[in-house]
Amino acid sequence: MEIIDGKAISEKILEEIRSDLEKRSCETPPCVAFIRVGDDPASVSYVNKKQKVAASLGIESQLHVHPVEITQKELLLEVSRLNADPKIHGILVQAPLPNHIESNVIFNKVDPDKDVDGFNVVNAGRLCQEDEEGFLPCTPAGIVELLSRSGVQTSGKHVVVLGRSLIVGKPAGLLFLRRHALGNATVTICHSRTADLSSVTRTADILIAAIGRPRFVTADMVKEGAVVIDVGINRVEDSSRKSGFRLVGDVDYDAVAPKCAHITPVPGGVGPMTVAMLMSNTVKAQKKALS
Amino acid sequence: MEIIDGKAISEKILEEIRSDLEKRSCETPPCVAFIRVGDDPASVSYVNKKQKVAASLGIESQLHVHPVEITQKELLLEVSRLNADPKIHGILVQAPLPNHIESNVIFNKVDPDKDVDGFNVVNAGRLCQEDEEGFLPCTPAGIVELLSRSGVQTSGKHVVVLGRSLIVGKPAGLLFLRRHALGNATVTICHSRTADLSSVTRTADILIAAIGRPRFVTADMVKEGAVVIDVGINRVEDSSRKSGFRLVGDVDYDAVAPKCAHITPVPGGVGPMTVAMLMSNTVKAQKKALS
Repeated sequence: MEIIDGKAISEKILEEIRSDLEKRSCETPPCVAFIRVGDDPASVSYVNKKQKVAASLGIESQLHVHPVEITQKELLLEVSRLNADPKIHGILVQAPLPNHIESNVIFNKVDPDKDVDGFNVVNAGRLCQEDEEGFLPCTPAGIVELLSRSGVQTSGKHVVVLGRSLIVGKPAGLLFLRRHALGNATVTICHSRTADLSSVTRTADILIAAIGRPRFVTADMVKEGAVVIDVGINRVEDSSRKSGFRLVGDVDYDAVAPKCAHITPVPGGVGPMTVAMLMSNTVKAQKKALS
Repeated sequence: MEIIDGKAISEKILEEIRSDLEKRSCETPPCVAFIRVGDDPASVSYVNKKQKVAASLGIESQLHVHPVEITQKELLLEVSRLNADPKIHGILVQAPLPNHIESNVIFNKVDPDKDVDGFNVVNAGRLCQEDEEGFLPCTPAGIVELLSRSGVQTSGKHVVVLGRSLIVGKPAGLLFLRRHALGNATVTICHSRTADLSSVTRTADILIAAIGRPRFVTADMVKEGAVVIDVGINRVEDSSRKSGFRLVGDVDYDAVAPKCAHITPVPGGVGPMTVAMLMSNTVKAQKKALS
C-alpha cells in the first residue's frame, strides 16, 4: 500500500509554477481576486490559505469581503466590476454562499476567461466538449494530477465516483471519460439514490469519495488493490484538540488503507492539490489575458 | 417483453405540440432554420424529414444549403446572420460537417437561446448545472421521454450508456444523473477503451447503445429483464432492397429482444423521438424569444 502524498505533489506543482513565473520576471505578476461573503470559519480559513500560497509564488491577490446581508444584485455588480478590471486575471467567489443567493447565477456571471474556479456554465460546457481552452474545477483537476504523478494509469480502468456535485462528482466523471492519456476510463457515478452501493463501489479500480459524510466508505465497500481518493473534508468533534474538532475524510482510512494499492490521506491528500490547481488556473488566466 | 413504440409515442408528443400551437393561433408560428452543408444522402434525408414534420405542425422552416467547399468563416457568418434574424427562433446545423470545419466552433456560434439541437457549449454547461432553461440535445431528451412514457422508472436504477459522444453518450449520462423524477439513476458510461465490456453491460438495468456499430450488442451482454434502448442507425448493404441498404441498430435485436423487459426497435424507436424533441425545442425557443 502506498500513501499518495498530496502535500509533496502539490509542492512540486507549486515549485513548477514558481519557476515558470520567475522565467517571465519582466512581466507583471498574475492577480486573483477573492470574494468572500460573511465570516464562515471554514471559508475564512480556505481563502487565507489560498492567499498565502499565492503570495509565496509571487501571485498577487485581492480579498473583497461582503456582509452576509449582501443582495444577489449587489454581488453580481461586484463580479461585473472585477470582470471589467484588466488588472485582475482570475476571480474566485468562495462557496458556500448564503441561501438567499443562487450560487450558479453568481458563478455564471464570472467572465469565463477569469473563472479560475471552473464553475461557470461555459467552462462546464467546455469540459463536456473536451475543449482544453476551458478552466477545469480545481478539485477534480487536482485528482487527475495526483493519479498521473503517482503513476496510476486510468485508460480502460473502472473509475467509480461517489457523489454527483457540480463541483467534484460530475466534472471528475467527465475528466476521466476524456479521450486523453489521463482519461479513457469507464466511469460510474453513484450517489444517495444508488441501490446496493457497496456492490458498485467494489467494482472500482479507482474509487473517488466525494459525498461529504465522515468515514462513509468502509473496508467492505472497497476491492482489494483499489486506488482510493478521498475528497471529503469533514469536521468532527474532538475535545482533545485545542480547536475542538479535527478533519476526517469520507473514507474510513484505518480500515480501508490496508486493502488499497494507493490511498490519499485527509488532510494532506486532495486538499493541497485543490489550492495548487487554483494557482495553475490563475497563471493560465493571465496567459489568456496576454494572448 | 414489450416493444417500445417510438413512432406511436413520438406521434403523441407531436399531437400535444400541435394542440399547444393551435391554442395560441393568434401568434406567428415558430420558425426553425436548417443549415445543410453538401449533399450527404443521410443528411438530405434527415433534414427533409424534419422539415416535413415541422410543416405538419404548422412550424415554419427554412433550408439553407451550402456547398461542401464553404469555409468555416463563411459558415460562421451564416450562423451569425441567422442569430440576428428575429423571425428565426431555432437554428440547426445538420451534422456531420466536412472535415475542414470544426463542428464545435460552429455549434458554439449558434445563439444558445436558438440552439434547438442543444450542442452549444452553454447548453452543455446548463445540462451539467441541471438548469432547465437550457436546450437538451434531442436524442438523449427523446430517450428520457421514451422511458418515462413507457412507465420505466430510473431512480436508483443502473443506467449503462455505451458511447461517450457529445451528442448522445455524455448528455444521456448527465440527464439520468439529474436530481429529477426522470433522473436519479446510477450512471456508467463505457466506450471503446472499456475493459471487459460485457461484464459492465450485464449489470445494466437500462442499457443505452450509442456507438454506431451494427448489431454490436449481443445477447450475452444483456441481463435478463433489462430495458434496452438502441440509438444506432446503421446502414448495412441489402441487395434485396431497392435502395441497396437497410437500417439496423447497435443491438442484435432478434437475439436480445427475448431477454428484455422493454426494447426499442430500429427503425421506429429512438429515431422519431429525436425529431419530436427538435419540434419541442423549437416551440420552447419561440417562447423564450417572446418572454
